[in-house]
Amino acid sequence: MLTSLAARVALSAAATETGHAPLADFHQWWKEQRAADDSASRVIPFADLRMWSFRPDTGDLVHDTGRFFTVEGLRVRRPGWPVPHWSQPIIHQPEVGILGILAKEFDGVLHFLMQAKTEPGNIAGPQLSPTVQATRSNYTRVHRGNPVPYVEYFRNAARHRVLADVRQSEQGSWFYRKRNRNMVVEVTEDVELLDGFRWVPLGQLHRLLAEDDLVNMDSRTVLACLPFPFAGADGGSHRPADTAVLGWITEARTRHELLAERVPLREVTGWRHEPDRITHESGAFFDVMAVAFQGRGREIAAWTQPMVRPHGTGVSAFLVRRTGDGVQVLASTRVEAGSADVLELGPTAQGTPENYAALPDDARPPLLDAILGAPAERVLFDTVMSEEGGRFFHARTRYLIVEAGPDGGPEDTADLRWIPLEELTDLARHSFYVNVDARTLMVCLQSVYGPDRAV
Amino acid sequence: MLTSLAARVALSAAATETGHAPLADFHQWWKEQRAADDSASRVIPFADLRMWSFRPDTGDLVHDTGRFFTVEGLRVRRPGWPVPHWSQPIIHQPEVGILGILAKEFDGVLHFLMQAKTEPGNIAGPQLSPTVQATRSNYTRVHRGNPVPYVEYFRNAARHRVLADVRQSEQGSWFYRKRNRNMVVEVTEDVELLDGFRWVPLGQLHRLLAEDDLVNMDSRTVLACLPFPFAGADGGSHRPADTAVLGWITEARTRHELLAERVPLREVTGWRHEPDRITHESGAFFDVMAVAFQGRGREIAAWTQPMVRPHGTGVSAFLVRRTGDGVQVLASTRVEAGSADVLELGPTAQGTPENYAALPDDARPPLLDAILGAPAERVLFDTVMSEEGGRFFHARTRYLIVEAGPDGGPEDTADLRWIPLEELTDLARHSFYVNVDARTLMVCLQSVYGPDRAV
Repeated sequence: MLTSLAARVALSAAATETGHAPLADFHQWWKEQRAADDSASRVIPFADLRMWSFRPDTGDLVHDTGRFFTVEGLRVRRPGWPVPHWSQPIIHQPEVGILGILAKEFDGVLHFLMQAKTEPGNIAGPQLSPTVQATRSNYTRVHRGNPVPYVEYFRNAARHRVLADVRQSEQGSWFYRKRNRNMVVEVTEDVELLDGFRWVPLGQLHRLLAEDDLVNMDSRTVLACLPFPFAGADGGSHRPADTAVLGWITEARTRHELLAERVPLREVTGWRHEPDRITHESGAFFDVMAVAFQGRGREIAAWTQPMVRPHGTGVSAFLVRRTGDGVQVLASTRVEAGSADVLELGPTAQGTPENYAALPDDARPPLLDAILGAPAERVLFDTVMSEEGGRFFHARTRYLIVEAGPDGGPEDTADLRWIPLEELTDLARHSFYVNVDARTLMVCLQSVYGPDRAV
Repeated sequence: MLTSLAARVALSAAATETGHAPLADFHQWWKEQRAADDSASRVIPFADLRMWSFRPDTGDLVHDTGRFFTVEGLRVRRPGWPVPHWSQPIIHQPEVGILGILAKEFDGVLHFLMQAKTEPGNIAGPQLSPTVQATRSNYTRVHRGNPVPYVEYFRNAARHRVLADVRQSEQGSWFYRKRNRNMVVEVTEDVELLDGFRWVPLGQLHRLLAEDDLVNMDSRTVLACLPFPFAGADGGSHRPADTAVLGWITEARTRHELLAERVPLREVTGWRHEPDRITHESGAFFDVMAVAFQGRGREIAAWTQPMVRPHGTGVSAFLVRRTGDGVQVLASTRVEAGSADVLELGPTAQGTPENYAALPDDARPPLLDAILGAPAERVLFDTVMSEEGGRFFHARTRYLIVEAGPDGGPEDTADLRWIPLEELTDLARHSFYVNVDARTLMVCLQSVYGPDRAV
């Protein structure tokens, strides 16, 4: 028996299209949005940044107002890890932004208000984004731009029905303890439909996930926080994680040591500062660089900003298996330099194959090669999607869901454990348990193991 | 229907005594433990500390090994709060220690292995302590003392049945982001009973809670993490917190701003450094001071150490009410300088009345006076207990549970909310949701609303 909310989410997940939102209409609308997009991004030298500069004392890359974010240094120690210490540039953005999706029933089916939005780092025009995607500097209008549409629904959420509201981390390799508030707010009142926005049922969003670079990262992380009733879940969308699972996480957070200290960017070693990039001596990992962006329909029309440009396409993959009472994923304990609390649960394997040439052999995720070599019939999901285009330039990850073989896959280890999807869904209701790549995969899992499909 | 584990906890909670552990025997044993205790604490000037000194560069009070803990400075900004900025000494102890209670069935009833332990800060001899209470420096034997008894049960917990395992915070006004691992581990094998240890059923522990300064803080915080089936709870011990409750916490953690920065102790302003104490100019709050301790049956027999000595007895109180489906407490959002994540849920009112003379009127918890003035028939629990005697000298708190009046008590506000006990129990399975005073009160609530009592 599903709870009433879980049943409504299930109904929306079953709807690839509705009378209000035919699939063909979406594709037509999307074609128009792409055609209307005249935005342009251009890589520039740091010297051409406007309102951004390197501070003479620290070398940090900062905005003149002190707001938005800064690029600083991070000195990291991980005793016992193949690379026991290093330093690196990192984005520090202490403000908690809002990633919000508005929900509303049309003809009895929940639809979600999505936006066609082009970000400076996007690889090919607009991506399908949440209703609101705003830093506190944005929505309090530090940059004197236009007001952020729909943001008041989220700032005054208690007046409506809150379906999800949790601060979640983002990429811990590039962000220092970044967290955004992930919200889904359901309204019953009429909502004005602005240009560039569209109501989409969940099943249609799931269908669109299979297209490369279409559903943006912020949409994915918010949708992962929905109370989603996976196939085979008996009690609804989530059930409290088993004490053994919580104890496993506690043990791992005690065993792994992460000592990360913010330092001036000029104290980072092993990185070269060039006119148009800060780059690792090995050529691996990522660059800090700068972009000039000319957008349409944004709060302000044009700006320049620093960004992080990763080298190579990432891979994030969950190994999954079906059991008598539902689906399990093999979660890993994932320590990242910018983690708020040592580690979060991550995909079975997560990494950028190109980087491992610059790292010791034992830094390679143990199951990465086995997953990449799985036979096609066990690959349930395989799409390349983009990471957040507001901070990352052409950052793409190949998301894979791969079914374990008939032997049920590997055994649990100290850093890998099979976890039922309903428990992972409950953990994602709390901060800092499920990392951003695993949250993207949770939405992919929704599209594979939706409630309308038989296990 | 209780789950099997919840039913076993309920059975133990119903047992004020068992054949294995008669109540009269406990009192006799306790009298002997007190009589045998020849430990002594003596307040000393800082100059008499051995292996501890003020670092010349920072003024921090540190151990020669760099381990255990340090007394440093903290500079705090809380925009919008009646005291918007201050600085203070704070204890920094980054190591995660173990607070562990061993559990075992005797004649079908769970008993818990408790220890009579005297700490340097205890006000009157031994208190009833967990099986293990050890910093990492302790159990890895930095001080070359005797091994910590029973600690291997917790370091290799996965070999046994783990009933609770969660890192929890401690006093955020005196500790910077302190966390200890709170564990309950059940064993089936024979366990050697060492001198000073005793098996006690949960109902007997609840009975002992009503005696001043008997059950120590570490025992209370660990027992609060048990899956306890409160009266009126239908599904067992815990159920996932409502999305509205989680959203309320998320909103509060976004609205309240806490900027706490570790600084050298010598940069703290408003505090006087005297030969035997560091004290606030107002005479309020707390002192940093030093103690020489001579104990018995400890890992090492005698040592000196710095401690925090609060002024005045604290008050921590939950307002409670009964509803159709269980008991609710009025929880507050409690921001403390050393909080790991802005705030945790605290008692309805928490504070030290003496301190409010030194603070603006609007810093006083809004319901403190109403609770202290409640008629006797609404006071369900009222005992003065000690805070952790390893770091705090003669620190005592009056713990109160007060029933709301026939009007059902105050309405929810932005910073106070009625929460069902089963949901609070689920939150306490995760780190940094329920603060240490509220956890003590949860154990007091176990003694008031145990599963054997009618609601």
